[in-house]
Amino acid sequence: MKRALFTTPQEVEAAFYEAFEKGDLDAMMSVWADDDDIVCVHPGGQRLAGTEQIREAWRQIFAGGQALQFRLREQRAMNGMTLVVHSVYEQINAGGEARARQPVIATNVYMRTENGWRMIVHHASPAPAALESEGKRTPKTLH
Amino acid sequence: MKRALFTTPQEVEAAFYEAFEKGDLDAMMSVWADDDDIVCVHPGGQRLAGTEQIREAWRQIFAGGQALQFRLREQRAMNGMTLVVHSVYEQINAGGEARARQPVIATNVYMRTENGWRMIVHHASPAPAALESEGKRTPKTLH
Repeated sequence: MKRALFTTPQEVEAAFYEAFEKGDLDAMMSVWADDDDIVCVHPGGQRLAGTEQIREAWRQIFAGGQALQFRLREQRAMNGMTLVVHSVYEQINAGGEARARQPVIATNVYMRTENGWRMIVHHASPAPAALESEGKRTPKTLH
Repeated sequence: MKRALFTTPQEVEAAFYEAFEKGDLDAMMSVWADDDDIVCVHPGGQRLAGTEQIREAWRQIFAGGQALQFRLREQRAMNGMTLVVHSVYEQINAGGEARARQPVIATNVYMRTENGWRMIVHHASPAPAALESEGKRTPKTLH
């Protein structure tokens, strides 16, 4: 596994999305703290906890082989001394899909460890369609 | 507004769910840090940022008047010096509903402020049905 040393949360975040785009499992896991309490929630997915579950899910995602491109926007940062939280919108483009995907809301948490900054939480959920027209805040009804 | 002083993240979390159950808007907002960067994502919802948006959403939720009861399980805590992250499952019972609701996965982040510990992030998303039978990990198809 690569022994990346990240000196800022921002570097970890960039490496996370780069590994995601490349489908590089080793690079992805080098972004995460090696800890039983790390948590990853993919959009619509179950909570994954600990290195083993999180690695296996990424292995399955990357085995799908779909090339994704991420553009982040509206980052909000909340900075502690040893923990930092970023809230972002992920705008995802998938190769071969004509229509843009719904944006994803992600909460990313980084921790300062003995081995530099690492990711400890990635919680992602689909943003509702209303985002595209801020004036229309009424929730979609299901009929 | 109540001037609660929370000395631990656990106290904030308890107060958050108590205010949610009671539909008490002032108590709910006393849990949150008063900051432009606080973030709240309700299940399936848009990202709300800052005190004003977050308060207005709680006002609308509480205006609905539905009594909810929360039971938290499988809490995982990641502790920094000034920020603490809790990942929990919310088991929600709604008055008048015969069937139990799907659990919700929540990432709650707390910050130590001049006014004690406060909530700065609540990111909630529905857990998929597969939770109830861990062996069946196949995603639900939409047909």
